Amino acid sequence: MPERSHERTAEPALRLHPPPSQDVGEAGIYGDLELPLLASGSRPYVLINMVASVDGRSSVSGTASGIGGDEDRQAMRELRSRVDAVMVGAGTIRAERLNLGLDDPDIRQPLAVIVGGTSPLPLAERLVDTSQDTLLVIPEDGPDPSPEVSAAGQKTLRVPNSGPGRVDLLALLEALRSEHGVGRLLVEGGPALNRALIDQALADEIFLTVAPKLLSGQESAILRGDGARDEPRSLDLLSVHSSGDELFLRYRLKDH
Amino acid sequence: MPERSHERTAEPALRLHPPPSQDVGEAGIYGDLELPLLASGSRPYVLINMVASVDGRSSVSGTASGIGGDEDRQAMRELRSRVDAVMVGAGTIRAERLNLGLDDPDIRQPLAVIVGGTSPLPLAERLVDTSQDTLLVIPEDGPDPSPEVSAAGQKTLRVPNSGPGRVDLLALLEALRSEHGVGRLLVEGGPALNRALIDQALADEIFLTVAPKLLSGQESAILRGDGARDEPRSLDLLSVHSSGDELFLRYRLKDH
Repeated sequence: MPERSHERTAEPALRLHPPPSQDVGEAGIYGDLELPLLASGSRPYVLINMVASVDGRSSVSGTASGIGGDEDRQAMRELRSRVDAVMVGAGTIRAERLNLGLDDPDIRQPLAVIVGGTSPLPLAERLVDTSQDTLLVIPEDGPDPSPEVSAAGQKTLRVPNSGPGRVDLLALLEALRSEHGVGRLLVEGGPALNRALIDQALADEIFLTVAPKLLSGQESAILRGDGARDEPRSLDLLSVHSSGDELFLRYRLKDH
Repeated sequence: MPERSHERTAEPALRLHPPPSQDVGEAGIYGDLELPLLASGSRPYVLINMVASVDGRSSVSGTASGIGGDEDRQAMRELRSRVDAVMVGAGTIRAERLNLGLDDPDIRQPLAVIVGGTSPLPLAERLVDTSQDTLLVIPEDGPDPSPEVSAAGQKTLRVPNSGPGRVDLLALLEALRSEHGVGRLLVEGGPALNRALIDQALADEIFLTVAPKLLSGQESAILRGDGARDEPRSLDLLSVHSSGDELFLRYRLKDH
C-alpha cells in the first residue's frame, strides 16, 4: 500500500460541550441548534456571528475571508437558515464581495440587510447573489440610493440618526420587526456594528469561530469602537464544537 | 428544604478535547500535562500563557488581573510547576504587583526572569515574593540595576541589544539555557514580549484561557507589536478544558 499520510480527510465535527462529547454527524455544527422562542419584545432576537484567530483578530488584508475553514462556512450557512434576516455593516460590504444567503436556491432565503452610511454603496458589485431580497438601511442624513440600486428593485429603509451618518440601531431593529417581520436576526459584522449592538445591549448571543491561527495584525480587532467600556460584559458559555483544530463557541450575553 | 439555587458551588474542571471528555478531578487543569522531552537545541522549550476575553482583549485598566477566574489561577500555577523559569516583560512588572512563583513555599520555585529595558524597574515594590530567585535581564544599553536591587541579591544578566532598549531574545534564551540551566520556560506576557517571541519563531506552545467576558477596550490586544505580520501562523489544537464558562485552550505553533 502506498503511503497516504498526505491525503487530506474531512475532520469529524464534534460537540464538546455540554458533555458528553459526540460526533454531530451529518447534521453538522449547529444542526441541532435550539433558539429561544421569539421574544415578545419589540425587536428581533439578535445573534452575532464572528470568526477570529487565536489572538482575537478578525481580518486579513481588510477582510474576514479566509480566516475560517470549510466547516466555518457550513456553520455560517446553518445559522443563516435559522433566521429571517442577515445583516452587515457598510464597511463589510465595501471590503469584499459577499454572499449573504444560502447555497440552495430552493430554500427560502433570509432577507439581506445592509446598514449604510453617508456615502453610496456599490451594492450591485458587492453582493454575489443579487436575487436575494435586500434591504438597504440609510440614515436620515444619508444619500438617496444610486439609480442602479433603485433599478435593481432593492428596497430601502430610512432610519433616524443616532449621530452623523449613523443609524439608531434600536429604531432599526424595531423597524425590522414591525415592518419586515424579522423575528430572528443574524449579524455578520463588521467589528464596529457588532460592538455597537453589544454596547447598546441589543445582542442576545455570540457565535465565535476560533481559527487555529495567529494573525497579529493591527486594526483588525474582533470588536472595534471608540473608547473602552467601563464595565466588562459577562457571558454564559452555551456550547463548544470542534472540527479538526477549529473551535466553535456559542455564548449568551448576560444582563439582558 | 430551603432553596439553595443561589449558592455557588465549584464547577468541575473537564477535559473536552481530545475526546472523550472527562472530569479531570483533583489533578486539575493541566495536572496531566505532557510536555515534549527537552529539545537538544540551544534554547529552552517555550510556553506562552495568556488570558483573554472572548473578544481577544488581555487587560482591564492596564493589567491582566481579574480577567481569569480561580481555575485560571490554578492552571497558571500548574504550568509554573512544570518549568524551570517564568518570564515577564518590564511593562507587566510596571503595571501591577506580581507573584511569579508557586503557592507552596516548600516546592522548588521556578526562576523569575524579568526582561528590563532602558529604565530602572521597581522590582522590590512589584514582586510579591522577593524570596524567589530573580534574574533581571538588561540590554547592553540599559541602566545598571538600582542599589536596592543589588542589595536584595537579585542577579542580573546583560544581553546584547536587538534595538535601542531591546534585548536580543534569541541571545537571552540561549543564555538562560546555557548559563542558568533553563530547559523549559513559561512566558506570561505582556503582549509585546509574547508577540516578539512568536514573530521570531521562539515560541513552541500557547496556552490561552478564554474568560466568558467582553472587554472591548482599546490598547489591550492579546498580542501587540509594530505592523501587521505578512503571513498568518498556523496552530495545532492540543487540548480544550473547561471550568464553568471558562475555556482553556492549548496550541502548538507549527513550522517550528
